[in-house]
Amino acid sequence: MRILGIDPGTGILGFGVIDVARGGKLQLVDGGVIRTPVHEDDGVRLLTIYEELQDIIMQHKPDAMSVEKLFFARNVTTAMTVAQARGVVLLTAMQSQIPIHEYTPMQIKQAVTGYGKADKKQIQEMVKVLLGLQTIPKPDDAADALAAAITHAQQAKF
Amino acid sequence: MRILGIDPGTGILGFGVIDVARGGKLQLVDGGVIRTPVHEDDGVRLLTIYEELQDIIMQHKPDAMSVEKLFFARNVTTAMTVAQARGVVLLTAMQSQIPIHEYTPMQIKQAVTGYGKADKKQIQEMVKVLLGLQTIPKPDDAADALAAAITHAQQAKF
Repeated sequence: MRILGIDPGTGILGFGVIDVARGGKLQLVDGGVIRTPVHEDDGVRLLTIYEELQDIIMQHKPDAMSVEKLFFARNVTTAMTVAQARGVVLLTAMQSQIPIHEYTPMQIKQAVTGYGKADKKQIQEMVKVLLGLQTIPKPDDAADALAAAITHAQQAKF
Repeated sequence: MRILGIDPGTGILGFGVIDVARGGKLQLVDGGVIRTPVHEDDGVRLLTIYEELQDIIMQHKPDAMSVEKLFFARNVTTAMTVAQARGVVLLTAMQSQIPIHEYTPMQIKQAVTGYGKADKKQIQEMVKVLLGLQTIPKPDDAADALAAAITHAQQAKF
């Protein structure tokens, strides 16, 4: 099974693709970010996300998508902008008939580190270990997206 | 000039289409709502919005889109869901190369009633008057979408 994890955002949207082998072994396929021009309007940035995400889906043909649920409310304007991007992400998955799975930040921490209150650094370290990498995937948004993908791999096992 | 106004939402998304004549006279072209199945996941609902909005754009070929800016933070989960729908709305307009204009709730109240703190009922009454209708457009979401369209008509005059 191939899983596409997404860390939603408008400035930078992280993505990570992993394969889950028969025995449950995880393997990194791809990871990176979609960057959108900061000086552009929301519409232009959302179109960039839509088109680049379509390319990623066409290239990797994932069987499932895993996306973090949004909860924050610290900065409402930022939260709204991220939610708009998330809407476009869900739409793109639907159009490609990819099942969408959503996990809370706590579920992701629990699945990746075994501890629901792990910090960002601990999660990234475990992403490296679980995927058998030499270094932590960069940038952070790609590592977060891979954490979401790993979470679905763990859930799908049971 | 033909303007498509949108009142974003996931359960019900209001739309309203108006024509602005040379002298500035406003005319109702169409108005209504896109309803999405409440028991479905966000992805399915966003795809419904995307496809129905594409149909509306193809049918009416608007020159501009006018959408209310989101500010609320009373219920964060609702706000996130509406923002996701709004992201899909902006994407759809971009794909049809329709310029997007955004107005705050206060700008809409000011433009439609001349008073930035008007209530919902006053706005709806003025939508009826400004479009020369016999009755207030129903449902409320359609009237709100028409108010957004009227706001852009007023702004575009200057």
